[in-house]
Amino acid sequence: MSLYSHFFYAEEVIELLSEKQAISDMLRVESALAEAQATSGLLEPSLAEIISSCCKVEKIDIELLKKEISLGGNAAIPLVKQLTKLVKIQNFEASKYVHFGATSQDIIDTATVLGIKSYTDWLEGKIKELIACLVSISQKHRNTPMVGRTLLQQAKPITFGLKTAGWLSALLESQEHLSQLKSRVLKIQLSGAVGAGNASITKKVQVSAAEILGLRATSSWQSLRGSLVEWSSFLGILSGNLGKIAKDISLLMQTEVAEVFEGAAEGKGGSSTMPHKRNPVGCAAILANANRVPALVSTMLSNMMQEHERSAGLWHAEWETLLDLMLLTGGSLVKTVDLIKNLEVDEKRMASNLELTKGLIYAENVSLSLAKKTGKMQAHETVEKACKLSIKTNRHLKEVIAEMDLEIENLEELFKAENSIGNSLEIIDAIISKSYENEI
Amino acid sequence: MSLYSHFFYAEEVIELLSEKQAISDMLRVESALAEAQATSGLLEPSLAEIISSCCKVEKIDIELLKKEISLGGNAAIPLVKQLTKLVKIQNFEASKYVHFGATSQDIIDTATVLGIKSYTDWLEGKIKELIACLVSISQKHRNTPMVGRTLLQQAKPITFGLKTAGWLSALLESQEHLSQLKSRVLKIQLSGAVGAGNASITKKVQVSAAEILGLRATSSWQSLRGSLVEWSSFLGILSGNLGKIAKDISLLMQTEVAEVFEGAAEGKGGSSTMPHKRNPVGCAAILANANRVPALVSTMLSNMMQEHERSAGLWHAEWETLLDLMLLTGGSLVKTVDLIKNLEVDEKRMASNLELTKGLIYAENVSLSLAKKTGKMQAHETVEKACKLSIKTNRHLKEVIAEMDLEIENLEELFKAENSIGNSLEIIDAIISKSYENEI
Amino acid sequence: MSLYSHFFYAEEVIELLSEKQAISDMLRVESALAEAQATSGLLEPSLAEIISSCCKVEKIDIELLKKEISLGGNAAIPLVKQLTKLVKIQNFEASKYVHFGATSQDIIDTATVLGIKSYTDWLEGKIKELIACLVSISQKHRNTPMVGRTLLQQAKPITFGLKTAGWLSALLESQEHLSQLKSRVLKIQLSGAVGAGNASITKKVQVSAAEILGLRATSSWQSLRGSLVEWSSFLGILSGNLGKIAKDISLLMQTEVAEVFEGAAEGKGGSSTMPHKRNPVGCAAILANANRVPALVSTMLSNMMQEHERSAGLWHAEWETLLDLMLLTGGSLVKTVDLIKNLEVDEKRMASNLELTKGLIYAENVSLSLAKKTGKMQAHETVEKACKLSIKTNRHLKEVIAEMDLEIENLEELFKAENSIGNSLEIIDAIISKSYENEI
Amino acid sequence: MSLYSHFFYAEEVIELLSEKQAISDMLRVESALAEAQATSGLLEPSLAEIISSCCKVEKIDIELLKKEISLGGNAAIPLVKQLTKLVKIQNFEASKYVHFGATSQDIIDTATVLGIKSYTDWLEGKIKELIACLVSISQKHRNTPMVGRTLLQQAKPITFGLKTAGWLSALLESQEHLSQLKSRVLKIQLSGAVGAGNASITKKVQVSAAEILGLRATSSWQSLRGSLVEWSSFLGILSGNLGKIAKDISLLMQTEVAEVFEGAAEGKGGSSTMPHKRNPVGCAAILANANRVPALVSTMLSNMMQEHERSAGLWHAEWETLLDLMLLTGGSLVKTVDLIKNLEVDEKRMASNLELTKGLIYAENVSLSLAKKTGKMQAHETVEKACKLSIKTNRHLKEVIAEMDLEIENLEELFKAENSIGNSLEIIDAIISKSYENEI
Repeated sequence: MSLYSHFFYAEEVIELLSEKQAISDMLRVESALAEAQATSGLLEPSLAEIISSCCKVEKIDIELLKKEISLGGNAAIPLVKQLTKLVKIQNFEASKYVHFGATSQDIIDTATVLGIKSYTDWLEGKIKELIACLVSISQKHRNTPMVGRTLLQQAKPITFGLKTAGWLSALLESQEHLSQLKSRVLKIQLSGAVGAGNASITKKVQVSAAEILGLRATSSWQSLRGSLVEWSSFLGILSGNLGKIAKDISLLMQTEVAEVFEGAAEGKGGSSTMPHKRNPVGCAAILANANRVPALVSTMLSNMMQEHERSAGLWHAEWETLLDLMLLTGGSLVKTVDLIKNLEVDEKRMASNLELTKGLIYAENVSLSLAKKTGKMQAHETVEKACKLSIKTNRHLKEVIAEMDLEIENLEELFKAENSIGNSLEIIDAIISKSYENEI
Repeated sequence: MSLYSHFFYAEEVIELLSEKQAISDMLRVESALAEAQATSGLLEPSLAEIISSCCKVEKIDIELLKKEISLGGNAAIPLVKQLTKLVKIQNFEASKYVHFGATSQDIIDTATVLGIKSYTDWLEGKIKELIACLVSISQKHRNTPMVGRTLLQQAKPITFGLKTAGWLSALLESQEHLSQLKSRVLKIQLSGAVGAGNASITKKVQVSAAEILGLRATSSWQSLRGSLVEWSSFLGILSGNLGKIAKDISLLMQTEVAEVFEGAAEGKGGSSTMPHKRNPVGCAAILANANRVPALVSTMLSNMMQEHERSAGLWHAEWETLLDLMLLTGGSLVKTVDLIKNLEVDEKRMASNLELTKGLIYAENVSLSLAKKTGKMQAHETVEKACKLSIKTNRHLKEVIAEMDLEIENLEELFKAENSIGNSLEIIDAIISKSYENEI
Repeated sequence: MSLYSHFFYAEEVIELLSEKQAISDMLRVESALAEAQATSGLLEPSLAEIISSCCKVEKIDIELLKKEISLGGNAAIPLVKQLTKLVKIQNFEASKYVHFGATSQDIIDTATVLGIKSYTDWLEGKIKELIACLVSISQKHRNTPMVGRTLLQQAKPITFGLKTAGWLSALLESQEHLSQLKSRVLKIQLSGAVGAGNASITKKVQVSAAEILGLRATSSWQSLRGSLVEWSSFLGILSGNLGKIAKDISLLMQTEVAEVFEGAAEGKGGSSTMPHKRNPVGCAAILANANRVPALVSTMLSNMMQEHERSAGLWHAEWETLLDLMLLTGGSLVKTVDLIKNLEVDEKRMASNLELTKGLIYAENVSLSLAKKTGKMQAHETVEKACKLSIKTNRHLKEVIAEMDLEIENLEELFKAENSIGNSLEIIDAIISKSYENEI
Repeated sequence: MSLYSHFFYAEEVIELLSEKQAISDMLRVESALAEAQATSGLLEPSLAEIISSCCKVEKIDIELLKKEISLGGNAAIPLVKQLTKLVKIQNFEASKYVHFGATSQDIIDTATVLGIKSYTDWLEGKIKELIACLVSISQKHRNTPMVGRTLLQQAKPITFGLKTAGWLSALLESQEHLSQLKSRVLKIQLSGAVGAGNASITKKVQVSAAEILGLRATSSWQSLRGSLVEWSSFLGILSGNLGKIAKDISLLMQTEVAEVFEGAAEGKGGSSTMPHKRNPVGCAAILANANRVPALVSTMLSNMMQEHERSAGLWHAEWETLLDLMLLTGGSLVKTVDLIKNLEVDEKRMASNLELTKGLIYAENVSLSLAKKTGKMQAHETVEKACKLSIKTNRHLKEVIAEMDLEIENLEELFKAENSIGNSLEIIDAIISKSYENEI
């Protein structure tokens, strides 16, 4: 993560998911556990208060903790050790109730979920911001004709707003999925050593701790990881949606296409020896992230077959994988917001690119118009002939058709992009209107 | 798929997803398109009827179609060619309206969704069946004590019903996810060459065709593939949940553990030269599938960055990948139902395995009981000493403790598994009760 | 594989890897085993001959075999059953020696290797053919200037021959790797139930059977799968190298670039309603395959952790994965040979695209030339100013420079592509010369 | 990487691949470039010396460099900027020759290869160490009988030395592959902006710089990434081989098997509340790493389709992926050496586990012995009957057979593990002897 942290990632996300925050979240779980047990009459509230008062990340020797992870194989064991010492100094009796009846995975999994919760809060806001940007650009370019391309070939006209509204529709889908999966993912892990609960981890304690932490109470998922994998695949899809945007923009930035550009910034994407270059540097980061994320999702998936009540290795493989998934997706999201906000659109170039095929992209228009008079078959043949002539003589199809004396009214109109954008405007409006619904 | 089709897959799923069915579904889309256009007044209803009447898979030369795919790069082009010929024989005028205004991807994507729809109907039924099996086995073994294992080590007692209820809880989660994602996945693709619609593919035509096919109308997703990827990752998670079940069972079938077994069948899993073997043959198939599926999901994810209005290659990479995902997951589901239905459980062996550590798995019970008298610290030290002695002398901890004259009441009770299963029963009941809610 | 077999795959490879061939290869192993045991004096040569005479795929009921796979979990068990019956009809005594001392995995793994061996023979020939095509096109276009592009931006001139020679260099690397890995992959599996050999599977039998089959004798690799994974990753890299070629060609075929084209064929890649389209249909297939293969390699890798002496599930997951890898890579290779053989190159368009930036891609040339007079700093500043003026006024940099009265000799020469291709020709020659060395 | 760096990784590898080292390696490339250009007469040797003298990582403001990466999208741009400033302070003329004619990717790729080179040196040593450990343990347990297991079922006896020799054979294969791929991977990248070389980057400069850096000179591989992918897949296979070892050991450590154990260390793998646990903590780390690595390899593979002369995104996606691959594999290797060095083997438990099936694993021995008298068929039937009786009456097969009065000589011998290990010893010796050959 180090050298390229500013390139692939976003500072605000790095902070959200820092190792200090992870330890802090584990301490929040220990604190909530003690409080919940006090509520259930399992220990004196005053003792729970003492435990909670020691659950401060500032009091933890993080370097020591990291060194000791190798012994027990997870971060909770050395953390509980340090926490118990801290509490013992305050009150010997209270120290007996630290981590009372819990297991390491209870603490680590619940802390992971707390991290996801903070991240989700951030993510929802940032997705909204991106949606707003996409609504805005779709409105602005609702009527800007450009060529639609399939299999990398010019096909027929659309408007640039239709393209951006498509991106928007994908984001709206991600937004909807996120709102649904939250209830599956944001749940407590608190069921003791083998997931069966015990005298100190009762249903009541579990519910109470879940309430304190703002999570849902549920049975053990120590070796049932579907919800974390759904979360991962959601991030994968979101990254893919962002990658799709960056892919289109990087292609549109090609020297030979040159229809849109990343916003210019001093020193950004340029080259002193190649003054004509406008490198898609932001796109490159988003694309790189989108190309790394799918494999991380597959790691989460292939790690689902966790043995018995806790796995030897597959659980451990999740820790950094989940972190990387959130860091990469978060970085891409921040970068995509910047990209859309500062996007430069060259409407003139879009217009001139529409003329590159010398009218051939309008051939079907002519054919349909002619069909009304001559029938479809005849029309098709005639236009096919005209197209071939146009290509052979390198002349504009409109000229060729005009000379053919076919009595087509409004020939000029058939060769205008704005008359060939189908239902683009209606579709754009519908997608934007859906984005408003989601808002409410 | 060939040689091992009976091993990894399920016949009923293979039929559901056959190439004949795929072509039939494409024809259903062409038929619905014509009918919807008739409804919108774009062609005479009688012509639409003629088209529909030709949309029969039996009339298609499938081998020819397959050969011609290489030319245009997809199955719709040669299909439309054949269909047009068929219609032309019936009615020349009608043949002009075959595939009217549509693009290949409209037909292929919508047919894919129709395939997913049939599969989903089947899947929902089969998941219900598995859930019913898991409810039943969880009820049957609600009180059957066995050892819970973490990191492949014996940890503490649970009941076998708790383990199966855990599997059940994972399936319930998949069931919930499936019910939510259907609205995102089961949608029509019908927007013409560049996704902008056109005079023949109006909003009205789209809505009407969607209605005929039982799908949701939506804007183009020709290069926005999030919903298909969510579908894929759902299948991945389901396969993982099934793999987790097979993993546990295969471990429990180990000669040294021998607590549960795949149902015996003549010639199944046995070996003539090794008469003691009970090979987990069904588990092997489910595990194999679960180990192949994650990579297929990552293919779907890494293919999301589709260029412009239709991709050159990434769209194509989805076709067989989606098929494999559905075949493998369907196969695993059928096999898991069989596995659970016929599972043999050796309660006696579960009981005797609980004694393997000579009482050490009950050490904490003693410690907690003693703590009430001597305080936690003193109790812990005493029990630790007893454990060491038990290990050293290879004697049962209960005996060692008994000789220590510690005045523990009910010593016998502390070493009974049924007293050490925590809240297993309550948790099982809660999960089963949730499964009934889902049913309603 | 079905519907799209002609699109993604190659008929000659499908045949090579058919289910009939797989069974035939298993029979070859059984036959070699009996012969080797006869050589070692473990059975009468006449009995071995009888066994061998029955090892004909035509005698096997394949549908029955496939149905029975589910019972034992692999294809060898029902095959041995059928083979034993066949032999028994001939000679009861001989039937006792069928599959004598061997285990299912011996037969299946060795047959897999025999399949790889045939495939490798085919592959080496086909790679040579592709290399020859690439040598030829590199020679033909050794001096054809085109623009080099980095981050999808025009950068500086190269020749088209340099690009194709780059593709060639990648193929040469694959060729070298293949020649080295063969000794690791093409080895027999023949060590009995737990890999320890036995009285019927002695070192001598193993060596003799290996010799008959043209493989290397080696200790058991029943749960040590590194060599198969190296084979898989080799195929992955080869597919990637082919995908790189298809990626470049598909980008060069873009309407806005239009420098090269897939060879035209009746009905191939065209569109009746969009007469200007030249869809990269062949590239799409190669790219699709290259996008599917990486995940299959990761399946092979994640399946390496096979339990003890034979895995329950991970071994099974290899079977179809390996097959798919070979089918997809083989298909891509055949398609790439076609692609290169029939590639149409538009040298004029390459030349005119070099002028798209109005001379800016030659800015550094001017700068270097000027530096000799004014020093590097001064030169750089002057040219930067000229570039800005050129962009602002949309005039050719050459004109702008000419007006600046800078006393540059040979100004015209500085703006010629052929003078700006660096060491392209020398590099091309070196790569081609390396391809001849490999040949020898 | 942070919180768990001590658990998954190895300190010595982290240092080898630190960000400081990466920058230092980039500076080595800049220095070698200047020196090579001096050798070729392109600049005064004294100027090159000045440049080289500034190529010290201590002089670089790393935090500034990292911040500026976002602008240009790679680390070389801001590094060259800082380096040029440093040189300019020393000598204005020299500063003109910093990074003379090179492109960012030249510097970054070559520095990556230098990192791989140091890592490879370390790796070869560490692999040798592991091989030595495996030779030693294989020799020590050459004759230690244990049960061989297939599909997680007890099958037939082997010796523990055969199992460890199998692990050894996999490592020897990796060692051989590594020795071959080095020449493909350890090569310079130095061909300027579009890989064509230029007046400052001649063949002579390239060869000379390669020599200084101890690398092979070669044509550009800026968008031809096969060698890096082969390197990645080699690491993947090595990680898989290590994962296989950890998988076997973790299964053998199961409470119910208990044949081998990770070496005990104060506080390692234990549990205060569950005194009987010996958690496979080291195995968990190695398994976790082996489960993460395959996906990273697939990322490298799916990133091969790099556009034109340098990719927008796919190149960038390699940077951290390669780093993670080397860190995870390196960590696993260090941990596996520790694992094998300190492995505790319980030969008695191996012996008693051989008796778990009450003689059934020796059934074939009896059958073969009997066959000499009664013929194979008769023998098989008799033994099958005896096995059924043994299972039914829960008595040892030996007793059952003894009572059957079958006149088998040496019945006792047939039920001894040491007589049933096939050719284990011969195979072990052959593998060990191969390890010595590699050494020479």
